[in-house]
Amino acid sequence: MRSERLEQQIQFAVVIDKLKSVQRRTWLVDRSRREDAAGHSWHVAAMCMLLAEYAAEPLDLCRALQMALVHDLVEIEAGDTYVYDPEATADKAERERQAADRLFGLLPADQAQHWRSLWEEFERRQTAEARFVAAVDRLQPILNNYYTQGAAWQEHHIRIDQVLERNRPFAEAVPALWECIQQLLADAVRQGMLLPASDFKHSLGGNCTF
Amino acid sequence: MRSERLEQQIQFAVVIDKLKSVQRRTWLVDRSRREDAAGHSWHVAAMCMLLAEYAAEPLDLCRALQMALVHDLVEIEAGDTYVYDPEATADKAERERQAADRLFGLLPADQAQHWRSLWEEFERRQTAEARFVAAVDRLQPILNNYYTQGAAWQEHHIRIDQVLERNRPFAEAVPALWECIQQLLADAVRQGMLLPASDFKHSLGGNCTF
Repeated sequence: MRSERLEQQIQFAVVIDKLKSVQRRTWLVDRSRREDAAGHSWHVAAMCMLLAEYAAEPLDLCRALQMALVHDLVEIEAGDTYVYDPEATADKAERERQAADRLFGLLPADQAQHWRSLWEEFERRQTAEARFVAAVDRLQPILNNYYTQGAAWQEHHIRIDQVLERNRPFAEAVPALWECIQQLLADAVRQGMLLPASDFKHSLGGNCTF
Repeated sequence: MRSERLEQQIQFAVVIDKLKSVQRRTWLVDRSRREDAAGHSWHVAAMCMLLAEYAAEPLDLCRALQMALVHDLVEIEAGDTYVYDPEATADKAERERQAADRLFGLLPADQAQHWRSLWEEFERRQTAEARFVAAVDRLQPILNNYYTQGAAWQEHHIRIDQVLERNRPFAEAVPALWECIQQLLADAVRQGMLLPASDFKHSLGGNCTF
């Protein structure tokens, strides 16, 4: 006989398979399809391992990895919200809170509390781990966009100032990567992958190196 | 300017995107498509978080999670080898060793050593973490097969004794899950998802509880 606890855990393992069917806007680097939220979560976690040395603050890698694995789970219920869609982002927080209630409520109480607190910590961006994972969560689609000639940027007519604005957390959480991102985005504009800013000077701020 | 080290790391982050295009035999639970190796790696890592309490030996979760994230990376070069295909498994070790040389060789030396040693530890199954991750790596496709009415088992005419043989590591690494797996597989045979064993008694051994 399976215990009730194990039964809940197995059912949760089956339910979260749905994350593989949550489609994102970003294309795979080989452009064969758009990426899904499970592949994205794996990529973010692997990049956290890869880039941990650039975190501005001391990092608990184990908590960062767990956060990366859990950070998009609510999208199973709430769907992926495109970051440059103001209408969809307006009620995102409420939709995701309700999704978290339903989803994490499937777990045994102690694990529900642990998984939910990881997700809430990620959302609040108030710890070193949350800021670092959030920065990597943003770097990954920038790389995929850049290495697909701006595929998703072009589809949605995205401007560099929108990407820079969204990626400001980089500057503090992983300063060494921030410069790299700025260079990548400036090059993306030069190559016509990304639209220039309506107010270029304002959007890049005073520390621009290119 | 990006440092040479950061340049290597960014290129590695881009290369490993290919794991999302390595197709496995297993179907997603919603049967919309077969799963890919990145989504699978995410699922295994998340299930390691979920089921760590069932490990027979004390577990370093951080190392287990890193191992789960890295364990299939060589498939970017070597492709996925279906576990029930004896011809493909014959040269699997050599193909994967060469793939590891090429892939991990892209990283800065210290990280190449760390990532490769995680993969080798997983392959050797000689630590608590390796045995636990290997068990979860096998449980995940069993769940996906069971909850798709044996889709991949039926396509390849798989028998219960083949699945039990492959999953023997469970018995030691996560004894509490082993019983659950045995029940699941027996039920799969009863429901016609999985073929019975040619020698049923032999394949189930003496500790069978059903």
